[in-house]
Amino acid sequence: MKGKAVVILSGGMDSTTLLYDVKSKGYDIHAISFDYRQKHSKELGTAMQTCIKLKIPWKKFDLSVLNEVAPSALTRDDWEVPEGHYEEENMKQTVVPCRNLVMLSLASAYAVGIKAKYLFYGAHRGDHAVYPDCRQEFIKLLSKTILHADWHEVQLKAPYSGMDKGDIAIRGKELGVDYSLTWTCYRGKEKACGKCGACQERLEAFKKAEMDDPIEYE
Amino acid sequence: MKGKAVVILSGGMDSTTLLYDVKSKGYDIHAISFDYRQKHSKELGTAMQTCIKLKIPWKKFDLSVLNEVAPSALTRDDWEVPEGHYEEENMKQTVVPCRNLVMLSLASAYAVGIKAKYLFYGAHRGDHAVYPDCRQEFIKLLSKTILHADWHEVQLKAPYSGMDKGDIAIRGKELGVDYSLTWTCYRGKEKACGKCGACQERLEAFKKAEMDDPIEYE
Repeated sequence: MKGKAVVILSGGMDSTTLLYDVKSKGYDIHAISFDYRQKHSKELGTAMQTCIKLKIPWKKFDLSVLNEVAPSALTRDDWEVPEGHYEEENMKQTVVPCRNLVMLSLASAYAVGIKAKYLFYGAHRGDHAVYPDCRQEFIKLLSKTILHADWHEVQLKAPYSGMDKGDIAIRGKELGVDYSLTWTCYRGKEKACGKCGACQERLEAFKKAEMDDPIEYE
Repeated sequence: MKGKAVVILSGGMDSTTLLYDVKSKGYDIHAISFDYRQKHSKELGTAMQTCIKLKIPWKKFDLSVLNEVAPSALTRDDWEVPEGHYEEENMKQTVVPCRNLVMLSLASAYAVGIKAKYLFYGAHRGDHAVYPDCRQEFIKLLSKTILHADWHEVQLKAPYSGMDKGDIAIRGKELGVDYSLTWTCYRGKEKACGKCGACQERLEAFKKAEMDDPIEYE
């Protein structure tokens, strides 16, 4: 055993791949997910199913306060999730301000409480233009901050922060990740829309990894 | 007007003094408080009363998730708040892991949402032995992290971080703070207990400032 590790699992491709990855390295894993009333709350279901499959203890925490504090197109019913690529201006509506900062702070509190030594999360290189709190610079600063937040030291690990989503899919292929138990589409209907920025990026990643995406599209 | 500023107001002595202080300097203030099911939730009432008195917009956010993620003697009914001074070993039970990190992260999200330029909080020099996330070193790191969490930059300000509670009370005396509208005791009964670490520190601060404490003790 390599020690106790908390993994933040959104139920999307990146964090699910990370979960398989961390498991393959022999950590004692405790997975956690956050329900912030995201329209794509379907990802919480896939997160749970993956943990059942891998026999990993899983907890879901209610983070609806994030929605109260700072609403966005990902959480508000009256704001439409835009179509198009992440690079485009209108994708800014999908930014939940400080989402990673808030989730990682709570995850640190959890890690301190259960005396875990590591905290893993699946930030990657792809989102930077619109999501400032995915940048490596931000992650480095936050790691130091978390290390100083309690006498019990928790090390933040973001092993995919230098990779893009395609590289992650390639890694997932090696690990045999069951991507049918992942959800990416921001719209959260029965089938993925294939049109929002999140869907487009997912489809490009599968293409790069020369895999078929096992989920259904509209 | 000096610009928009969010002030985190617990309803205790320090943050209430800070609110008067920031107001005296002419900022456009938005005060926020967090309900994390603290036993001393009476402080939320005094926070509201102070904001009514000073005509400052005030919001309260539900942070019960902090209690779920990491329970402590401040929130759990079955854990007794210990008597004695902060320096003592048993006061460690009152540490809510990463409480400041979590609150400041959410406050940053709020500040980004309303496009505030400053975020003020009342950390001071007194609590360091048991509360690692009140140290100046931690505050410095967190300031940098928050500055990088969004394209809209929020500056964290902790002007009392080099002062002790007695110094704050002296400043409060100059500002004419109404300390009858503050609550400190961790036990949250009708009158303050006078025995817990929080009460002892408050009483010492009033002594240093040569003031009478206007609240009632058991």
